[in-house]
Amino acid sequence: VRIAELSTRSGTSIPSIKYYLREGLLPAGTPTGRNQADYADAHVRRLRLIRALIDVGGLSIAAARDVLAAVDNTDLPDFFLLGVAHHALDRSAGRDRHDPVWTAARTEVFQRLRERGWLVEDDSPNLDRAADAVAAMRELGQDDLLDCLPVYIEASEHMAVTEVDTVIARGEPAGMVEGVVTGTILGEALLNAIRRLAQQDAAARRLA
Amino acid sequence: VRIAELSTRSGTSIPSIKYYLREGLLPAGTPTGRNQADYADAHVRRLRLIRALIDVGGLSIAAARDVLAAVDNTDLPDFFLLGVAHHALDRSAGRDRHDPVWTAARTEVFQRLRERGWLVEDDSPNLDRAADAVAAMRELGQDDLLDCLPVYIEASEHMAVTEVDTVIARGEPAGMVEGVVTGTILGEALLNAIRRLAQQDAAARRLA
Repeated sequence: VRIAELSTRSGTSIPSIKYYLREGLLPAGTPTGRNQADYADAHVRRLRLIRALIDVGGLSIAAARDVLAAVDNTDLPDFFLLGVAHHALDRSAGRDRHDPVWTAARTEVFQRLRERGWLVEDDSPNLDRAADAVAAMRELGQDDLLDCLPVYIEASEHMAVTEVDTVIARGEPAGMVEGVVTGTILGEALLNAIRRLAQQDAAARRLA
Repeated sequence: VRIAELSTRSGTSIPSIKYYLREGLLPAGTPTGRNQADYADAHVRRLRLIRALIDVGGLSIAAARDVLAAVDNTDLPDFFLLGVAHHALDRSAGRDRHDPVWTAARTEVFQRLRERGWLVEDDSPNLDRAADAVAAMRELGQDDLLDCLPVYIEASEHMAVTEVDTVIARGEPAGMVEGVVTGTILGEALLNAIRRLAQQDAAARRLA
């Protein structure tokens, strides 16, 4: 189909499509003449994925490009793909690693998760992000907020097992690749929205 | 103290401090002469909060300014403050509200939460964000990822009750205000980091 129909079918404006083509997020169509190209169903599907990553997942163009490149690279192991999806979601500026409060927070989270039996790589950037939040709570004198950490750990365990099992149940590799990316990125957007709705509910009950 | 010592004590560079002053995130110090001002402990504390919101929470300058203005406005009810914190965390571009897939997704989430007994306002932007994610999963043909929704709902219930109770346990209003903001924003950063670590653990186990 031509670009106009690609626009209609994907619900994406022509300028946006041209932008994604220029930025390398959407592969070029098959040239059919001067300034014209033919686009296939794969383009409609890819555009929906791009929109989901950017509009719903809140990813930057650069982060979305990294994720799509990983999805296209069929040689990557699934586990590596999870790291790519996590990296794309990482919006934090990161803190000074030499700060003793931060170092202590990182060790504390690491040990807690190890005691719980989690397989945690010591160099995981996710561990850095957890330390960022814990150190910030401590420095702001909000230590009591860390009472929520055990609940976060327990809840995350349940969620992650369900998420990983859902993706693995697909069986075929191509479906698993898309599942890792969308499950991680859209799943985080969904969970955060549900958590905020739960906070509204809990606050309304307690303050009533 | 002078700006140099404020910089040392807060771990924030002088150019950053000047930027936050210009942008209205940090109140001006007491003038002590031409181009000089004196800063108090409240400034050190405020700078830590600014850094936490931006570096750890991933907030934009504009979003951080909104949150700080709400924290400073002692007339606001706590419940409103929760909405301000949620709004600041909202990074999604939002989808077309006339799209039938989106409308159906929104109704589905709303009904599920109501059946579960949650108090959900029908016009909550958090409901829109949940609908964004559900609609995107559907359109990408990843409906099976929605098998995780019941786990997200149950987990969020536990987390939200603990979070709200922790903040309410403080008793005094000023502490509750800071608790709502930091608990919501830093809590989300912490939870997301912990959830990703749980995904790494679950994936490593299943693929081992």
